[in-house]
Amino acid sequence: VEGFIDNITVNIVGCYEVPAGKWISAVDRTPHHTRYVVSKLTPRLKREVRLLKGFLTGTETYGAEIRVGGFSGYLSELLIIHSGGFLELLKAASGWRPPVVLDIEGRLARREALALFTNSPLIVVDPVDKNRNVASAVTLTKLSEFILASKIFLENPSISFFTGGFMHKPHSLESLAEDRELFAVMFRIDEYVPPDVIWGELRRSAAGIKKRLELAGFNVYNYGIDERDGSIVLVFELDKINLPSRFVHRGPPVWMRDAIRFVEKHLSSPDTVAGPWVEGERLCVLKKREVISVDVLLKKWISQGEVSISKQLNEAFISSKMVAGWREVINMLGSGIHASFLARFLSSRPAFMEEFGRKNRLDRD
Amino acid sequence: VEGFIDNITVNIVGCYEVPAGKWISAVDRTPHHTRYVVSKLTPRLKREVRLLKGFLTGTETYGAEIRVGGFSGYLSELLIIHSGGFLELLKAASGWRPPVVLDIEGRLARREALALFTNSPLIVVDPVDKNRNVASAVTLTKLSEFILASKIFLENPSISFFTGGFMHKPHSLESLAEDRELFAVMFRIDEYVPPDVIWGELRRSAAGIKKRLELAGFNVYNYGIDERDGSIVLVFELDKINLPSRFVHRGPPVWMRDAIRFVEKHLSSPDTVAGPWVEGERLCVLKKREVISVDVLLKKWISQGEVSISKQLNEAFISSKMVAGWREVINMLGSGIHASFLARFLSSRPAFMEEFGRKNRLDRD
Repeated sequence: VEGFIDNITVNIVGCYEVPAGKWISAVDRTPHHTRYVVSKLTPRLKREVRLLKGFLTGTETYGAEIRVGGFSGYLSELLIIHSGGFLELLKAASGWRPPVVLDIEGRLARREALALFTNSPLIVVDPVDKNRNVASAVTLTKLSEFILASKIFLENPSISFFTGGFMHKPHSLESLAEDRELFAVMFRIDEYVPPDVIWGELRRSAAGIKKRLELAGFNVYNYGIDERDGSIVLVFELDKINLPSRFVHRGPPVWMRDAIRFVEKHLSSPDTVAGPWVEGERLCVLKKREVISVDVLLKKWISQGEVSISKQLNEAFISSKMVAGWREVINMLGSGIHASFLARFLSSRPAFMEEFGRKNRLDRD
Repeated sequence: VEGFIDNITVNIVGCYEVPAGKWISAVDRTPHHTRYVVSKLTPRLKREVRLLKGFLTGTETYGAEIRVGGFSGYLSELLIIHSGGFLELLKAASGWRPPVVLDIEGRLARREALALFTNSPLIVVDPVDKNRNVASAVTLTKLSEFILASKIFLENPSISFFTGGFMHKPHSLESLAEDRELFAVMFRIDEYVPPDVIWGELRRSAAGIKKRLELAGFNVYNYGIDERDGSIVLVFELDKINLPSRFVHRGPPVWMRDAIRFVEKHLSSPDTVAGPWVEGERLCVLKKREVISVDVLLKKWISQGEVSISKQLNEAFISSKMVAGWREVINMLGSGIHASFLARFLSSRPAFMEEFGRKNRLDRD
């Protein structure tokens, strides 16, 4: 049952009332979780939980959905119960080195937990089900951001860790983007797709694009994804938006039967710039590259099925708008719903860090 | 004793008259070589040797000096004795796959020869001393050029294999060089240094420069060395003559003690473009690169001792003239004694291949 109260979506989800361990549906643990948390949280700890959730929200590490890959509400409560308070947790976290294993009820040895939850950077054994990792959604990047935020907060506490967002007026987009090698992809998805599904596909597709670009000789410095009201944007920062217009094509060793055919072919080819010459035992030839721009190349590769992007998004990517060049990217995204995402991508610096830097500069002056 | 007859330098070198194997000086084998060759060469084979030497000269594979790394006169004679004729040798060579072992007198098993002369792509056991490889000077590239020239000659015999050089008027340097990412180094060496010494040092230095450039992110497509009357030139063709003006600096993992110092340092640094951000467990920051041009960078690296170039040439390289850009390289080398080297480097195509390509084009039309 789904409804709205004051613009807030309310979901009522039914579950089976079963003893711990006899789970029938995925949500049967919830009443057990509630009972466990209620039994452990004193009024003081409840306030500490609220502090932690504020900190996680402000540092953009709150939420187990795929878009975030961060800390769920239940996980936050367990972390406070385990550490005994907000500052205590941050002190512990500033000493964490992934993989981190926390087991409030002491039901698994560290070694067992690591074997059970491989590839989880953070393992928090569920007190009501030792076979479940409450932190399974937390990515290594989000865990690391939390560790870093904890370290900086302890050295330099500030309200910006709770308020988040841009504290200060950002520089103009132009001055942020100037001369940077930017490339953006934009398309719409109009039918409803659950956020966890779409974000999973976007993440996989962006990783596939990065891989294909690097295979071709581009260096992907960083990339970001934004989704707003069905409008999707991927922005990539590269070492260059054009491949070199010449490249060395390494041919067969001279002793191979087809070596002479390689020579023949490239001698008479109009896109041969120099050679063939011999380097070691191998033939080389310098060729001219006809298509060099990342947007045209990527469109071609996607059409040819050479990019590992999710099937559901394939058509959307093929008919997407792709632009290369910092001016072109600002033209496409600099005003409108993706503008603040673009500013944040160009800065690539969490709000709490911005404050830390400002403080440092003030202290020095 | 050294003298001149009609502008030809004549060296008279004394040696000990010793039985084979009882060598006292390095040249004591020579009379034995002469006796062996004279005893084996019939008048027909002598003509075949002359043909081979003409072929080697025309394909620029003749000469055991380091500048060439090719076939010596004695080696040519042994190859003809071994194969029984010029065409017979070319037929055999077109089937060679390095490492190649030839042993006229059958004194070593292939396995023994390979163990004795490791890293030699061509092993020709000396008939007067089985512990000596007559072809020890032949580089893999020169051997491969010979194999390739043999293949092409057999399919498409032409006088150009013997005449060498540019058969046809080359394109203008401008049209050859246009838009190519060229970089050149020029300096003089005025004191006399034996050619094998200077060429060894130039080769090592060029390889050291290539290595340093690639470490920095340049891609070295090809390079060439020229020496004429004490004037030295190195030309490099790269994927780009400028490094990207931004680069990602990967810092420590967030859990390291100095992670927060990394954040502090780069937040307040004026050459920070974006970040720090967290990727996986690691901190990253986008930095501005102040010096991007290959000529300025290389000068700096050489001065700082970061380039593996020979000590004797270090000063010469530091005070050398370095220019980047195809127009600048043509300005420096396009007229004068290095012009024909530059044209040959830009074409990077042996003369006999040029002819092969022309023939193919004519056949087709």
